[in-house]
Amino acid sequence: MSATHQKMMRMALAEARKGVGKTAPNPAVGCVIVKDGAVVGKGWHKKAGTPHAEVHALRAAGEKAEGSDVYVTLEPCSHFGKTPPCAKALIEARVARVFVAMVDPNPVVSGNGIRMLEEAGIEVEVGLLEAESRELNLGFIKWMQTKRPYVVLKSAMTLDGKTATAGGDSKWITADAARREVHRLRGKLDAIMVGVGTVIKDDPLLTCRVPGGKDPLRVIVDSTLRVPLHAALFSLKSEAKTVIATCSGNLARIDAVRARGAEVLVCRQKEGRVDLEHLFERLGERGVQSVLLEGGHHLAGGALRAGLIDRCKFFLAPKLVGGAGTGLFAGEGVPLMADAIRLEGMTVKKIGADLLVEGRPTKNKF
Amino acid sequence: MSATHQKMMRMALAEARKGVGKTAPNPAVGCVIVKDGAVVGKGWHKKAGTPHAEVHALRAAGEKAEGSDVYVTLEPCSHFGKTPPCAKALIEARVARVFVAMVDPNPVVSGNGIRMLEEAGIEVEVGLLEAESRELNLGFIKWMQTKRPYVVLKSAMTLDGKTATAGGDSKWITADAARREVHRLRGKLDAIMVGVGTVIKDDPLLTCRVPGGKDPLRVIVDSTLRVPLHAALFSLKSEAKTVIATCSGNLARIDAVRARGAEVLVCRQKEGRVDLEHLFERLGERGVQSVLLEGGHHLAGGALRAGLIDRCKFFLAPKLVGGAGTGLFAGEGVPLMADAIRLEGMTVKKIGADLLVEGRPTKNKF
Repeated sequence: MSATHQKMMRMALAEARKGVGKTAPNPAVGCVIVKDGAVVGKGWHKKAGTPHAEVHALRAAGEKAEGSDVYVTLEPCSHFGKTPPCAKALIEARVARVFVAMVDPNPVVSGNGIRMLEEAGIEVEVGLLEAESRELNLGFIKWMQTKRPYVVLKSAMTLDGKTATAGGDSKWITADAARREVHRLRGKLDAIMVGVGTVIKDDPLLTCRVPGGKDPLRVIVDSTLRVPLHAALFSLKSEAKTVIATCSGNLARIDAVRARGAEVLVCRQKEGRVDLEHLFERLGERGVQSVLLEGGHHLAGGALRAGLIDRCKFFLAPKLVGGAGTGLFAGEGVPLMADAIRLEGMTVKKIGADLLVEGRPTKNKF
Repeated sequence: MSATHQKMMRMALAEARKGVGKTAPNPAVGCVIVKDGAVVGKGWHKKAGTPHAEVHALRAAGEKAEGSDVYVTLEPCSHFGKTPPCAKALIEARVARVFVAMVDPNPVVSGNGIRMLEEAGIEVEVGLLEAESRELNLGFIKWMQTKRPYVVLKSAMTLDGKTATAGGDSKWITADAARREVHRLRGKLDAIMVGVGTVIKDDPLLTCRVPGGKDPLRVIVDSTLRVPLHAALFSLKSEAKTVIATCSGNLARIDAVRARGAEVLVCRQKEGRVDLEHLFERLGERGVQSVLLEGGHHLAGGALRAGLIDRCKFFLAPKLVGGAGTGLFAGEGVPLMADAIRLEGMTVKKIGADLLVEGRPTKNKF
């Protein structure tokens, strides 16, 4: 019985997954409706302002929804937003039971949808495959609770921890499969962030180059506004904007950058550099729920030292630079090994010839 | 049918495994004898100078050996050494067939045992689970073919590639399970090698601290003979010797080190340091078939640059130093990422909280 419920919720999660990266500022949600052991409807939320997953599933189920079991990856909404409340739609369809993977993370409305269903006599079970559901909406959840984006540090390095040789060469560290995975990642997060050093050195586009992928907002951290005005990303055709975050007060330079079509975001400074905590706060204010930090080592080191990284994704190539070279993090490390930042929940998998090691760094500042 | 043969050879490999690390200068070998589908005898080689695996298995099988199938992980010997030739014993026992995982790697005698069996009318099949058999005797095989030891670089580091913090602290990087695995490794290889810097900094014992484990020969690479005379390893109770490899000509110092019970091996120098290639040659001459290189970073860098490492075993702890610190390899790395040393046949597994990544580095010098 419980195995059946898990199977159906897994199907709902698979539905939800189709929307990851496309629904901002809404979460990705999936829904499956089961009547007499058969799936009679399923659906997923495609885009903010369009119907929610439950509505798609109910439409597909039609009259069969009556007396059915509903599996939904997030608590049905209880309020009129751009669409009517889903809890109400489920009640009107006379469903029998609702399995909810996780409650709404928004502290203000959390639990209201469930209460509405229960008050209408519908049995509700909460928590089935909750961890899997959270995983789909890490940005949405953190942002709802803190108004700050979820920050993922992605880095490609050799097994001896180098992101470039002593001469600065870094092309290429990982193989095709890992690089495709990075592009998919770009399509799933709201913004991509790099230091200006990376722009000067690599002149990257910072776009999502997978079919159907959505470009993330580009954020360049550029404390002294050194970004070259001829950088390739100023000439991009992309729906996503470019934001240059700086603490420079050079108005002429700010105007020149703006004239290239980018937005200049003037942030507080901290020790002569953009205060990253302030920058993430500013991005959160404008609805950015997730940020992919792609380097370089000054930015990565600054973010780690300030305890701002929620997740690390390290692509490790089966290679050795074998001596001096650029490491992952610039600056002072922890003084003692016992003080090292720990990576919690570490997982590892092979991506083509490379390894992908993931985990959540502890946030002790140093 | 083939599945049965594999199963039986796997049993022979399991027998052989019991002897790994204990049989030097002989290989670890296992043997299983099967009659009418039942195992009637098995055995493994325990120690040089004692009976070979085949003899143990034949003794167990007794008269049932006649007409049997024999599974042996290495070609039966054809010569009188400390014990009579096993090929002869198998012929006298009138076995029907012999499955041999791999031929004798000694180019001088390779194939003779198989020929002896075939000339006696016994059917011989070679190559069943050969790769697994080779894996058990990497040191023996390399040494037989080149008279040089098989060199395994073992290193523990954080995920950002640090073996110590900027202040030099390195206790501890990995957790208990990984450290136990290192001790097991020490018991399996003939010698352990570290640079004198490690002795000065950590004052290690370099012993195998697992029950029933055998201490490896201790080799300290100490170009200028800086080893402290009060180092703990000079006061060890251990069956294994300590060798100090140097290119120093300071005779008084050499005498002082010898007076502490260690052997001093004077090697050629290369750029002011012990020529590692020469050192491995010297170790090979005295029958050392495998060496575990445990660091530090000058020794590891020197060995990698000279193309002397056969296998890397990297224990990666789920930790980040987060900035400056000691890396795995000192010295100049490769100039371009495309020149990076590649790790072939990379595998990864979890050892407690840590990862163990293994592979065979390509041997291009740089």
